[in-house]
Amino acid sequence: MHFTLDRLSAVSLVQQLTTQLQAWIEQQRLRPGARLPSIRALAKTHGVSAACVIEAYDRLVASGWLEARHGTGFFVAERKAGLPEQDAALWGETVDGKWRQFDEGQEALLKLGCGWLPSAWRAADELAQAIRQVSRGNPADLFDYAPPLGLASLREQLHKRLERLDIAAGAERIVTTHGASQALDLLVRALLRPGDTVLVENPGYYNLFNLLRTHQVNMLAVPRTVHGPDLDALQRLLVEHRPRCLFINSLYHNPTGTSLTPKVAYRLLELAREHDLRIIEDDIYADFQEGPATRLATLDSEQRVIYLASFSKTLSSSLRVGYVVADAALITRLAELKMVSGIGTSRFAEQVLAQMLANGSYRKSTQRLRVRLGQHRARLLAQLEGYGWQVFAEPNGGMFVWVRAPGHDFASLERLALAHSVLLTPGAAFDYQGHSSAWLRINVAYAQDVRAQGFLRAAGEAKGDLDHALGDIT
Amino acid sequence: MHFTLDRLSAVSLVQQLTTQLQAWIEQQRLRPGARLPSIRALAKTHGVSAACVIEAYDRLVASGWLEARHGTGFFVAERKAGLPEQDAALWGETVDGKWRQFDEGQEALLKLGCGWLPSAWRAADELAQAIRQVSRGNPADLFDYAPPLGLASLREQLHKRLERLDIAAGAERIVTTHGASQALDLLVRALLRPGDTVLVENPGYYNLFNLLRTHQVNMLAVPRTVHGPDLDALQRLLVEHRPRCLFINSLYHNPTGTSLTPKVAYRLLELAREHDLRIIEDDIYADFQEGPATRLATLDSEQRVIYLASFSKTLSSSLRVGYVVADAALITRLAELKMVSGIGTSRFAEQVLAQMLANGSYRKSTQRLRVRLGQHRARLLAQLEGYGWQVFAEPNGGMFVWVRAPGHDFASLERLALAHSVLLTPGAAFDYQGHSSAWLRINVAYAQDVRAQGFLRAAGEAKGDLDHALGDIT
Repeated sequence: MHFTLDRLSAVSLVQQLTTQLQAWIEQQRLRPGARLPSIRALAKTHGVSAACVIEAYDRLVASGWLEARHGTGFFVAERKAGLPEQDAALWGETVDGKWRQFDEGQEALLKLGCGWLPSAWRAADELAQAIRQVSRGNPADLFDYAPPLGLASLREQLHKRLERLDIAAGAERIVTTHGASQALDLLVRALLRPGDTVLVENPGYYNLFNLLRTHQVNMLAVPRTVHGPDLDALQRLLVEHRPRCLFINSLYHNPTGTSLTPKVAYRLLELAREHDLRIIEDDIYADFQEGPATRLATLDSEQRVIYLASFSKTLSSSLRVGYVVADAALITRLAELKMVSGIGTSRFAEQVLAQMLANGSYRKSTQRLRVRLGQHRARLLAQLEGYGWQVFAEPNGGMFVWVRAPGHDFASLERLALAHSVLLTPGAAFDYQGHSSAWLRINVAYAQDVRAQGFLRAAGEAKGDLDHALGDIT
Repeated sequence: MHFTLDRLSAVSLVQQLTTQLQAWIEQQRLRPGARLPSIRALAKTHGVSAACVIEAYDRLVASGWLEARHGTGFFVAERKAGLPEQDAALWGETVDGKWRQFDEGQEALLKLGCGWLPSAWRAADELAQAIRQVSRGNPADLFDYAPPLGLASLREQLHKRLERLDIAAGAERIVTTHGASQALDLLVRALLRPGDTVLVENPGYYNLFNLLRTHQVNMLAVPRTVHGPDLDALQRLLVEHRPRCLFINSLYHNPTGTSLTPKVAYRLLELAREHDLRIIEDDIYADFQEGPATRLATLDSEQRVIYLASFSKTLSSSLRVGYVVADAALITRLAELKMVSGIGTSRFAEQVLAQMLANGSYRKSTQRLRVRLGQHRARLLAQLEGYGWQVFAEPNGGMFVWVRAPGHDFASLERLALAHSVLLTPGAAFDYQGHSSAWLRINVAYAQDVRAQGFLRAAGEAKGDLDHALGDIT
């Protein structure tokens, strides 16, 4: 089995490999049920990276040409009836690495670095019940458009929630959005123009980087430390570049899991005042909060902080409900943009959320999640220490830990992970310039899976051997 | 009761009036239960338009300060408990005339020109049932993000639907969107830059005009005739301005209700080929189709036509499900933009739609709608003729008729409408430059309401008197 890959072609190696593998299957040179070469073997014989082969296999799994069987490898599938022949091309074309974790048909690999909780952890009964209630309730919720600022019943609940966080915001300062992602998109549309410069935390949220690039906004990186953004670096950038705003996760930062300390928060707001900087505080992990927490929107007294959050992480990514809190003039502009670009949010989804906030089932379900996350986080941190991994900082809440296995680069970790049927999210995805990194984001909720444990132990052992050779470096 | 209005202020007259009315209520100079002056009286004493007073009253109704009682006028409400005090300002600030029809709390006025069907006409049982089924089904549909192109089960159904319309499009050429509005927004983002020039039909869809203006795209207007766009005007504009694309409703055009004839469609595609014009065909009224119909996407053999549609008009505006059909490269770009700006569509909503398409309940419900719309349209057209209204063209399907009452301008029609508790959508809203117009869009589904009948008869009678004076001009 050999394919001719053209390294000078405009078509990516992944796509070339995908197309040729598919052709072999179509021509029945590979028959249904046949086993594909191992990732390592195919990568070696064709001089491509393992990631390239994985991507090609993934695309063919997603489009139904291949099946991944847990622990044993990839096999040619029986073509699914009813799926148009072109589907393979479709996935191949659309789904590049960035969106791989959003694909269907990846069940065979454990997504250890993904950005959401397992379905089994979620409030399935409570959500299904709220959905059924709304389906039997006011027909307007089934059929009608939502008003520009969002459904009044939801905004009232959000107002109460914000009061509990000591964020002073009347309902006139809240607009609902299609998840936090649309909130960010609307803010970029309203506040920035191509060529503007903004500050982002590095490492940080890869979809924010994609979004800013799409809008042709220049990014300057503020390193994220254990206590929040590096204030010296921040001050230098403020003086030199006068950026328009800063995007930040105060709590349980993605990907490092760190939270802002009060001292850093105060100083940050002082700097913002001195340099007339707007701050966009993305608080999507807010409801994972355990113990005291520092939020810029709580401390802010001059409406300098624009606050946004969503229910995608704690309840459902499927409903797509988020919101922004800002001064009334900006809220007006955001509502206008929201209507123009999509005639508002889903009234049905907003009523479901409003119901769960009003009847307390959302609060109860997040309590359960916090306890469970806390247990899994503590267990994982103990294991990582035992296995010899390095942890950036022990997070006090949220889903993520940011770790590395001394002695491994990403490529070697990825090989090891795949051998254990684990799909990693590369550290490079969280670098604003895509620079490679040996750091990994691990979602604690998946770490007790037998596949994850196998991988974590194996990577740690490698490091253990190294430590043994080098003496203890931790 | 007198207010001081500053005509030179940056604050609109509507907002000034709203604020001062609210202040009177807060200061209890107007007590709960008190009746407000009539729209006409307040407009007269303050030298403002009736529309201005209506808008101010509407905002105060929406924010709970006033109540509209059917047929008798506006009254000071008891303040709703739990509604933040600032809510009045909020509605006042956000909701300008354009979005008035999307507000809550407008039940007292019949929205005769609105763009959707009454809830009572919709497939409430079938939709609620599908929702409950999905809520009991695959937990992934409750919780997970949708893949970049949209849920495979929905795209498979869309593929079949397109086959029935003779639109050749494999599933790799379909991407789902948050309604047709997001489809348009993504297309503008992907295809156009600020300063680009495009063709729009005039009169046409006001939210498309808003969208293009927001993106700083220049519009050139092609007059819409009874048979489709005016081809002579189109040809001149193509030669002189080389626009990038044309936006068009082939079927049941909004607002005129007219449909493309085969002759116009063929010639239009010829012109598009000659001038390398892309066509964006917005087919959101597709499923109202009765009898044969001409679609550009069906005739197109060179992927020049980008097709989009949604389920907002026929099933639910609340679920926000639409889609685009285009060449694979553009679909890839749209999916990318969709992920970056909102991490995809609602998986839950797409599964509900997929279910109703698969089990036939969507098809049955649209059949019922077509019959009902047909009956209401026929009755209204007969009444309009009897009352002496002028009809732009008798539509052969869809929701809209485009009409005027000779002898009336919009202001006089609006006064008459309000006297009958009817809210009109001004013809100016459908003009790409907002020029005033005596034409009105009427939604046939609301025209048999007693309020509508009162208005239609009264406006027609005025014309009747005029005809009597002028002799028969029809």
